[in-house]
Amino acid sequence: MKTDCEENNFKIIKEQGITYPKGIKAAGINCGIRQTRKDLALIYSSEIASSAAVYTQNKFKAAPLWVTEENLSRSGGKLQAILVNSGVANACTGEQGLQDARETVKYVSDSLQIKEEYVAVTSTGKIGEFLPMDKMRDGVKEAVSKLSLKGGTDAAEAIMTTDTRKKEIAISFTLNEKEIRIGGIAKGSGMIHPNMATMLAFITTDIAIESSLLQDALTEVIGKTFNMVTVDGDTSTNDMVIVLANGLAGNRTIVEKNEDYHQFRDNLYAVTEYLAKEIARDGEGATRLIEVEVKNALTDIDAGKIAKTVAGSLLVKAAIYGHDPNWGRIFAAAGYSGAQIDVNKIDLFVKEKIVSDGQPLPFSKDTVRKYLEESTEIKIIIDLKIGNGKATAWGCDLTHEYVNINTKYN
Amino acid sequence: MKTDCEENNFKIIKEQGITYPKGIKAAGINCGIRQTRKDLALIYSSEIASSAAVYTQNKFKAAPLWVTEENLSRSGGKLQAILVNSGVANACTGEQGLQDARETVKYVSDSLQIKEEYVAVTSTGKIGEFLPMDKMRDGVKEAVSKLSLKGGTDAAEAIMTTDTRKKEIAISFTLNEKEIRIGGIAKGSGMIHPNMATMLAFITTDIAIESSLLQDALTEVIGKTFNMVTVDGDTSTNDMVIVLANGLAGNRTIVEKNEDYHQFRDNLYAVTEYLAKEIARDGEGATRLIEVEVKNALTDIDAGKIAKTVAGSLLVKAAIYGHDPNWGRIFAAAGYSGAQIDVNKIDLFVKEKIVSDGQPLPFSKDTVRKYLEESTEIKIIIDLKIGNGKATAWGCDLTHEYVNINTKYN
Repeated sequence: MKTDCEENNFKIIKEQGITYPKGIKAAGINCGIRQTRKDLALIYSSEIASSAAVYTQNKFKAAPLWVTEENLSRSGGKLQAILVNSGVANACTGEQGLQDARETVKYVSDSLQIKEEYVAVTSTGKIGEFLPMDKMRDGVKEAVSKLSLKGGTDAAEAIMTTDTRKKEIAISFTLNEKEIRIGGIAKGSGMIHPNMATMLAFITTDIAIESSLLQDALTEVIGKTFNMVTVDGDTSTNDMVIVLANGLAGNRTIVEKNEDYHQFRDNLYAVTEYLAKEIARDGEGATRLIEVEVKNALTDIDAGKIAKTVAGSLLVKAAIYGHDPNWGRIFAAAGYSGAQIDVNKIDLFVKEKIVSDGQPLPFSKDTVRKYLEESTEIKIIIDLKIGNGKATAWGCDLTHEYVNINTKYN
Repeated sequence: MKTDCEENNFKIIKEQGITYPKGIKAAGINCGIRQTRKDLALIYSSEIASSAAVYTQNKFKAAPLWVTEENLSRSGGKLQAILVNSGVANACTGEQGLQDARETVKYVSDSLQIKEEYVAVTSTGKIGEFLPMDKMRDGVKEAVSKLSLKGGTDAAEAIMTTDTRKKEIAISFTLNEKEIRIGGIAKGSGMIHPNMATMLAFITTDIAIESSLLQDALTEVIGKTFNMVTVDGDTSTNDMVIVLANGLAGNRTIVEKNEDYHQFRDNLYAVTEYLAKEIARDGEGATRLIEVEVKNALTDIDAGKIAKTVAGSLLVKAAIYGHDPNWGRIFAAAGYSGAQIDVNKIDLFVKEKIVSDGQPLPFSKDTVRKYLEESTEIKIIIDLKIGNGKATAWGCDLTHEYVNINTKYN
């Protein structure tokens, strides 16, 4: 996949997000689940949009995810609105949780005068608590009344939990002489007091594309971006990514995996990669973004295992927080990742080459330590020299503040 | 496996360890690898002993482990001495590392006047550094001269790294009217500045048993004890467990899986369980031992996945450090463990029953919080009610001190 901005010929549009594509409005309000912070986001497309979604693999998948999956299946991959609340996850809530999620769908459908099957709902917050339905009902009405082009940023804020900053991006590119726009917002920075675990992302675009191809593109880019982020190794009950494509750009509808499809997929990749890195960078308590690039592994899968295991190793994360040029921990993590390694071929680069053919080089500890101290993006490159597999994963350092954030209780 | 002390009819012998079985002497000295702390341990059996070992699964398995495996294979499962140094791991050291490990074997063989193939060597410490061979040579001579019955405790101390206390145990039981003794020492509490990652355990016994049966017993009990401990999820390059059985107890030699074998195995289990729990309890920075018992899973393997994932979840560990009765995190971890779960059947107990058939009960948060505050052993019981699989795992809480220990650099 091409990921370079110039190569793909896309422009990043500053200070724009989810409402940049044509026909998209959004709102973000406080409906009273949380004390003062925004807690309800609504994203709305004026046209029925081809849609695709990816859900958590956790066995305790939350109620709203089941209901959204149901709706997407009924509508044949079409959506018009996404409602997100923070504060209560509506997970481990049994039959009542499913009823509440369906009832929430009804509020949105009634207020927007759209079919129920065109509504996606999702939640992030405390596990095992029920949605406050009165607040949800009134909140939906208020959110609908506030839908606007400017509401994109409010929506980006309303889905935040322990996030220290909103995460949004907008890009545009040209396809058969038509301008195509993609916007995205995301949240996620680890767990929050007490149970908010969730990584959520919502992407809108005005491209015309069939739902099944949109799903293929989403699944492919997520495997290489959101699924390669690790903050604490815990997979939430509520993780979900949704993309809406409403066709207002007026391009020839993409109905096969042609050049247009690949260009769109590559640009969708760029959007998800940006948001994934923003999530890692904003990991709970993090002071450093860690990027682990693995090259020349036996397979892409092996490369992914190593990249993610190294980025997720507590000992690597703690060493980077301590500015410790501690390459042994990187190798120990690679060694238990389950991937094939030739211990006599592996090279390692952190600022400079520090291991060659498995043997430590007399590298400058001071130079590497200074790099770890002064750079806020730490790049680790592992070259296995046994194949063509490659992958990149993103994580963050393990800090005292992470422990602070996750030990305070109600 | 029966693990109850009375049921198995064994006695715990206070203030005894590795030298309690007949014919075993040990020593622990400082040979100058570390500044002042003991850094070299030697365990010696007057008789050639049936022996078995289990090694790390890490692809970067350290040089001494290869050499020990080689010797055990050459000798047909017999050993007479184990040498352990701390401070330098002799891992990722290539051909030179293997030569150094073989040279160390020679020092021991020469000083003790035993065959090289009867010597096991192992190391724990900094990855990528070479053994200081002069110090090793002189150290081996000194250790041999200091071998004694009292040296067991010195050996337990010499293998410590970030461990805050030595870990040793001795038990005795009767088999065909003969007294059988088992002694053990272990080390391990996570990683240490800068790279000492290792879990090591050495067990001696005077039982008479064939090597292959000793290996079977060791492999079986390790799967349920040492392999069910998680401190930080990182698997060392140097993990190893060795058991020596020198036959001096005079029992009928165990040559098949009869009643004698099972009684020995159960008592070996008790010794390894004790040492495994001691390792978890002494996890870096830990204030609490966490025991996760999983019952009625589909299979033992599924039960093990859940137990170990919950015990290893950063968010569960941080919640326990914060005395937070945060059961959602326990379920989230169970949900991503990969095991089969019926979310409408699962029960959870922490001090009291707090989830029944997947639904939260109105439990007393104050009672559970008090339990988390006041108890130093936290017990979590998960009952899946879908089969007969069971497993127990041990871990510890995640504390500020863990981050302190693992961020300081050279």
